[in-house]
Amino acid sequence: MSKKFVYMFTEADESLRNLVGGKGANLGAMTKLGLPIPQGFTVSTEACTKYYKDGGKISDDIVKEIFKAVKELEKISGKKFGDPKNPLLVSVRSGARVSMPGMMDTILNLGLNDEVVAGLSKATGNPRFANDSYRRFIQMYSDVVLGFDKTFFERIIDEMKEEKGIKLDTEFSDADLVEMVKRFKAIYREKMNADFPTDPKEQLLGAIGAVFNSWENPRAEYYRRMNGIPSEWGTAVNVQEMVYGNMGDTSGTGVAFSRNPATGENKVFGEYLINAQGEDVVAGIRTPEELDTLKDVLPEAYEEFMRLIKFLEVHYKDMQDVEFTIENKKLYFLQTRSGKRTAQAALKIAVDLVHEGLITEEDAILQVGTEHLDNLLHPHFDQDELKATKPIGSGLPASPGAATGVTAFNVEQVLEFQAKGLPSVLVRLETSPEDIEGMHVSEGFLTARGGMTSHAAVVARGMGKTCVAGAHELVINEDEGWFELGGKRLQKGDWIALDGTTGQVYAQKIKTVPVEITGDFEEFMGWVDKHRTLGVRTNADTPADAKQALSFGAEGIGLTRTEHMFFDGVRIKAMREMIVARTEEQRRNALDKLLPIQQQDFEELIVAMEGHPITVRYLDPPLHEFLPTQEADIVELAKELKITVEELKQIIVSLHEFNPMMGHRGCRLSVSYPELAEMQTTALISAYINVSKRHPEWTLVPEIMIPLVGDVKELTFVKNVVVKTADKLIKEAKSNLTYKVGTMMEIPRACLLADEVAKEAEFFSFGTNDLTQMAFGFSRDDAATFLKDYYDKRIYEFDPFQTIDQKGVGELVKMGVKLGRKGNKDLQIGICGEHGGDPRSVEFFHKVGLDYVSCSPFRVPIAKLAAAQAAIKEKRAK
Amino acid sequence: MSKKFVYMFTEADESLRNLVGGKGANLGAMTKLGLPIPQGFTVSTEACTKYYKDGGKISDDIVKEIFKAVKELEKISGKKFGDPKNPLLVSVRSGARVSMPGMMDTILNLGLNDEVVAGLSKATGNPRFANDSYRRFIQMYSDVVLGFDKTFFERIIDEMKEEKGIKLDTEFSDADLVEMVKRFKAIYREKMNADFPTDPKEQLLGAIGAVFNSWENPRAEYYRRMNGIPSEWGTAVNVQEMVYGNMGDTSGTGVAFSRNPATGENKVFGEYLINAQGEDVVAGIRTPEELDTLKDVLPEAYEEFMRLIKFLEVHYKDMQDVEFTIENKKLYFLQTRSGKRTAQAALKIAVDLVHEGLITEEDAILQVGTEHLDNLLHPHFDQDELKATKPIGSGLPASPGAATGVTAFNVEQVLEFQAKGLPSVLVRLETSPEDIEGMHVSEGFLTARGGMTSHAAVVARGMGKTCVAGAHELVINEDEGWFELGGKRLQKGDWIALDGTTGQVYAQKIKTVPVEITGDFEEFMGWVDKHRTLGVRTNADTPADAKQALSFGAEGIGLTRTEHMFFDGVRIKAMREMIVARTEEQRRNALDKLLPIQQQDFEELIVAMEGHPITVRYLDPPLHEFLPTQEADIVELAKELKITVEELKQIIVSLHEFNPMMGHRGCRLSVSYPELAEMQTTALISAYINVSKRHPEWTLVPEIMIPLVGDVKELTFVKNVVVKTADKLIKEAKSNLTYKVGTMMEIPRACLLADEVAKEAEFFSFGTNDLTQMAFGFSRDDAATFLKDYYDKRIYEFDPFQTIDQKGVGELVKMGVKLGRKGNKDLQIGICGEHGGDPRSVEFFHKVGLDYVSCSPFRVPIAKLAAAQAAIKEKRAK
Repeated sequence: MSKKFVYMFTEADESLRNLVGGKGANLGAMTKLGLPIPQGFTVSTEACTKYYKDGGKISDDIVKEIFKAVKELEKISGKKFGDPKNPLLVSVRSGARVSMPGMMDTILNLGLNDEVVAGLSKATGNPRFANDSYRRFIQMYSDVVLGFDKTFFERIIDEMKEEKGIKLDTEFSDADLVEMVKRFKAIYREKMNADFPTDPKEQLLGAIGAVFNSWENPRAEYYRRMNGIPSEWGTAVNVQEMVYGNMGDTSGTGVAFSRNPATGENKVFGEYLINAQGEDVVAGIRTPEELDTLKDVLPEAYEEFMRLIKFLEVHYKDMQDVEFTIENKKLYFLQTRSGKRTAQAALKIAVDLVHEGLITEEDAILQVGTEHLDNLLHPHFDQDELKATKPIGSGLPASPGAATGVTAFNVEQVLEFQAKGLPSVLVRLETSPEDIEGMHVSEGFLTARGGMTSHAAVVARGMGKTCVAGAHELVINEDEGWFELGGKRLQKGDWIALDGTTGQVYAQKIKTVPVEITGDFEEFMGWVDKHRTLGVRTNADTPADAKQALSFGAEGIGLTRTEHMFFDGVRIKAMREMIVARTEEQRRNALDKLLPIQQQDFEELIVAMEGHPITVRYLDPPLHEFLPTQEADIVELAKELKITVEELKQIIVSLHEFNPMMGHRGCRLSVSYPELAEMQTTALISAYINVSKRHPEWTLVPEIMIPLVGDVKELTFVKNVVVKTADKLIKEAKSNLTYKVGTMMEIPRACLLADEVAKEAEFFSFGTNDLTQMAFGFSRDDAATFLKDYYDKRIYEFDPFQTIDQKGVGELVKMGVKLGRKGNKDLQIGICGEHGGDPRSVEFFHKVGLDYVSCSPFRVPIAKLAAAQAAIKEKRAK
Repeated sequence: MSKKFVYMFTEADESLRNLVGGKGANLGAMTKLGLPIPQGFTVSTEACTKYYKDGGKISDDIVKEIFKAVKELEKISGKKFGDPKNPLLVSVRSGARVSMPGMMDTILNLGLNDEVVAGLSKATGNPRFANDSYRRFIQMYSDVVLGFDKTFFERIIDEMKEEKGIKLDTEFSDADLVEMVKRFKAIYREKMNADFPTDPKEQLLGAIGAVFNSWENPRAEYYRRMNGIPSEWGTAVNVQEMVYGNMGDTSGTGVAFSRNPATGENKVFGEYLINAQGEDVVAGIRTPEELDTLKDVLPEAYEEFMRLIKFLEVHYKDMQDVEFTIENKKLYFLQTRSGKRTAQAALKIAVDLVHEGLITEEDAILQVGTEHLDNLLHPHFDQDELKATKPIGSGLPASPGAATGVTAFNVEQVLEFQAKGLPSVLVRLETSPEDIEGMHVSEGFLTARGGMTSHAAVVARGMGKTCVAGAHELVINEDEGWFELGGKRLQKGDWIALDGTTGQVYAQKIKTVPVEITGDFEEFMGWVDKHRTLGVRTNADTPADAKQALSFGAEGIGLTRTEHMFFDGVRIKAMREMIVARTEEQRRNALDKLLPIQQQDFEELIVAMEGHPITVRYLDPPLHEFLPTQEADIVELAKELKITVEELKQIIVSLHEFNPMMGHRGCRLSVSYPELAEMQTTALISAYINVSKRHPEWTLVPEIMIPLVGDVKELTFVKNVVVKTADKLIKEAKSNLTYKVGTMMEIPRACLLADEVAKEAEFFSFGTNDLTQMAFGFSRDDAATFLKDYYDKRIYEFDPFQTIDQKGVGELVKMGVKLGRKGNKDLQIGICGEHGGDPRSVEFFHKVGLDYVSCSPFRVPIAKLAAAQAAIKEKRAK
């Protein structure tokens, strides 16, 4: 920790961003550039951290530093803090390392009290301005710093409007404002049993403390969690001399972007108000003017502004979002920052800036956020309609996009609505593989249970559908056809809308804006592919998924889940027969029925992938997932199997597992029933042999992945079955097909013993979902219920199923990579857990040296961008 | 691997034990000592390993070596292999590194064929002996080496007895035996479509191959698994010149122990037969004579024998089990080895040998097996009664001892039988905490589900009761009051017997021999305590367990499971109230009811431990374990809680978890509901304050253990609640009580980040049950179903829940220890999983430098012995 906690703007610049925050760094930099900046100082982020360590107290040494800086500022400005004759007034703003909504925004006019306001009146010859500033200050400060209920003030304003018979704030006379301040102070005294603080120093420390406190408020915390910002970072506080846009008709204030933030068009875009302070622009009481018109009102200020905003854009090499104030014709910049922009604008601006020669391809890649691409690839709601409505509840933002449709509670209802030409949203406690068909047809899914990696979430991301999962407040009564959320009951057929990006649920139809991919996208992705080193594959189980992923630029399939192929009518029957078989013969009979189906599926998938590699994972989930639960299905299956219903029920009970996630699944199935691996190998190798003949132009090398390996002997055992079966088929077909056998690394023990495992494996693919479950000791299906408490209590700051836990799970991955390469230097290593599509996780996988990540089709471009960004950052760090 | 595969006895000794096996080493050593040993050679264990590697073939180079050794043996003996005039005959015996039942035992008289037998007749002038040897050889060799059904031969013997009108084998004339051999060969030819092999060389290689094959037979494999012997070790084969106890009345054969193997009495104990071969002594056709009588029959041989057996005992410093043969008055030792003995004898012999000055205390400690102590501390069946009965089935030997009683299917029935004065055995699908009361009263438990660490198994070991768990064949119908096993149906009230050491189940009453602890035990345990460095604590939840453990020498409690205190009538009601509470207030009300009960329990436990340390683990299991499942209970609870049955059912459903083992349990409960940790702290600290006042002579420092920690922040959070609550109570009571807060290390992630965790923990206690579950990714409740396949397929050789997996789970433990001590150099580290009572695991924990192990009361002496043995071995290895 530094010994210094307060920096003058003249001391700060980009290199101190971690200490002075983004805003502070920019103000420092602009000062150095000679821009017209009201001066001030920044209290550092470390002061914030210390504030929390000291139990919510600004320590004496920091207080001393603050007032030393005030003295310095007095020198620079020639004004004096609390001096009625020539008062220094300041604004106080928060400013973290990265721009972050949810924290305290701004307090203006700090330093005012009865004496100072009188002095200010005199000094400016503008008593209306002085009193207006004072009442604004009291309102803002009471609300934000002192926690006083602001409706008391609003009520007074309304009363006074009625008394005076006026409608607008601007109609209040000077005397009215003096009276208003009086009443404000009276109500404050009455309710708070204390006087409004008149000492500017006390005001300043209060405001700084309030900024620090706002770092830990729930909204800020939620934002941090969503964006993986550690709470240890803290926020800085910027204290800046006030300049006044409300000093009359040659004064004004405004905001502007150096390019259009919605479309990306290269044209300055902004708004301003004459005779106003910043808050007026935002508050919407007066309608601001378009920036263009300023040319006629204050032409000199306008010209200077246009010159300087472009100067800033060139300097920062990015579109800028600036706040400015004109005080008596003199232009001041209050702050500048990279402007927030829509996905479409982000792409256009980045590509344009490269074309304009202002930035390099690498800069462009770093400038476009992965969240921009994500938005670009999913529909979103019409922003106006969205603003006009309120959500009835929320869940986890499990798969991005916007969906609107009528409520359906099961697959039958989805199909029923489809027949009527109605889009529908599937609302369920949780989804299961049996719902797949309905999921394909519906617009999106809302579930009460499960987390970011629940079945619904995974399938949704795979299909590019919208999903809100784990909405715990949701009460569903499928039988009676209604659900309740946020106190509202909706019936089957009622319109709802889901925002998969925010997790919000709306009880109405909302217009959606479809995906629009522009020409910029392809050019940009070309740069991305050029600059990344990490491969990007996709997780895909069907030809449709595979084609979708290819169209997004996937370089192969990193994970095909074969169990997903067994849920249809005929398939599930044969599958069930296999499971309840009591002898190897019965089991082989059932497998014989599955074989041709599986082979056909494989052939179609291979053709769809046009010669790109495919990693096929052998059967993984616990068998009982496939067992019937409905009485009718049980009766039918018993009949088919020629056993009694009682016997079948006995078998089903005997297959019950206490913790199915840690049960008889993965390679354990093939250890018990080698004929399973035999059948899958026969289907896969036969399919490859067939397609090879039809497409000799493709180099086809199937990658067979054995899941859930915890000991090399397990892998050896199953591999022996695979090799024996495959080699026989290849020999019989006189084919020269080669294939690879590898393993999914998802059991902690396998990572600890990866050198041994690698001796038998040609590739590893980290299954970070299961690895996370085992390393943390909680199952993704159950953890959702208590993780909320963990966020609330600051134990975890993000969902480890969404972004990889680098310290713990990541350590196992590192071990697996290091030992794995030690055991087999040619080992190919990838990752196919859900983390493969998470940008921060992708960066980690790049760093630890994986060969590729694999993710759902719609996340392929995002993973590519994250990979390119990681490569560039790494290069630049060297 | 050595280049040499065959060793003459003159080349072998103890230093080559790994290569020549135990028997080979002893024969070599005895040869060097100048004892009368028929000479021979040993084919090494590495030859066995190579045999398997070569696909069940003795490679040419080894064959060459074998016949080179035969040549050498011919030189030594002056006889010639296959030479009718002066034939060399040999015995072939298996001999692994450690004595191991289940493998091929012995083939005698190898080298005989029609010509050789004729020569032997002539050379010995004893045709009856020669032909008797021949027919024995054919019988033995056909059965053991060639896999010929021996009943064909037995039928011929019976036929011939009838023809001749005789009863005993010894009544056959010389001619009869010639005829018998003829008929043997004929039936062999008929059934096998080949001649009985007449080439001695072929016979020898066949016998050696048969020994190698027997290494992998199921019985041998089972034994290896139970005793943790790696299958890579292989077995050696001993080929030894025959000497003949069946050459007439001055010949004989026998077995003897240098001390009584049943009682340990220092008196040679043995049996012999005149004019017989070794197998006759065992076969039981003729009743052997007591060794004492040999004094009168062959006094010189007797005197020499008595001298030499004592000589051997002194040489090997242990009670010896020898085989001997007297050929025409000349004594030969065929082998010697440390004798198997009963538990009681083991202890007496070890203590006596120390007193006799023959061995040191350290030797004595190494000589007594942990399994001996185990037997000593549990009742066992009367061996004669046991031999006379057959088991109807078996399960896992989950808790040792012998139990006999009438069948009861639930707690009510156990109590019903108790009222009638009848002992009972509880037979259940699985037990649950609600059965505790009945478990206390019954003699033992038989369950159909669960493994070595299932509830029934853990409780049984804790209580010192017998348990056979996971008898998968068991079908139970509690409603109709019967169970079926091995095709037999037993009713409620029928007698059964369980052998917890073997896992066998018997359908009758069998007399049990109660525990008898002699004076030797205390003296011996005194030595054990002196020589071990690892501490030994106990897992105990009740004052009764605590007292039991103290009487066995426990040095404290390493684990008190507080959830076990909440199952009684009033307790479970309050517990359930707490769980279904929807508000903190409701929850606190319920906790207020539990507080005084828990405090009272703690006080009693503290007093029972007489000042020894106690580690108390806070509530750990998933809450839903405590929820009612019976309709009546649900109705009652709903009434009590003043909610509808429907509401309560909704709550129960909402508390359902997919994988409860990875669900809302352990410290996660206190993160969600800090009031839980608050209540437990209040109860514990108040109890300690009270007892401190009554017993100022004790230094009481409670150890508070937070379970299931995966991140240091979890620990910090709960610790803060504990410290705040405890410090307040201590201050209010003006007490000077101090306490420790530590954590259970049972989540892989905690081990990976142990340095961080250790900064907040004063102690670690490894929970190796959960750690094993998470590291392997299988739950102990479910793994039992497929682990059998893993043993069958040689993937695992032992149950990782019983003996710690040193390579995988052990690596996590090592990491935890290393990083833990790095984070906190004063860290106290123990282990309280089931492995704490397993001797091989205890040795590992000693090696990795833990401070103590904690195990169930009845395993305390065993853990101590294992700890002492580990310390001595370590010292000697230096």
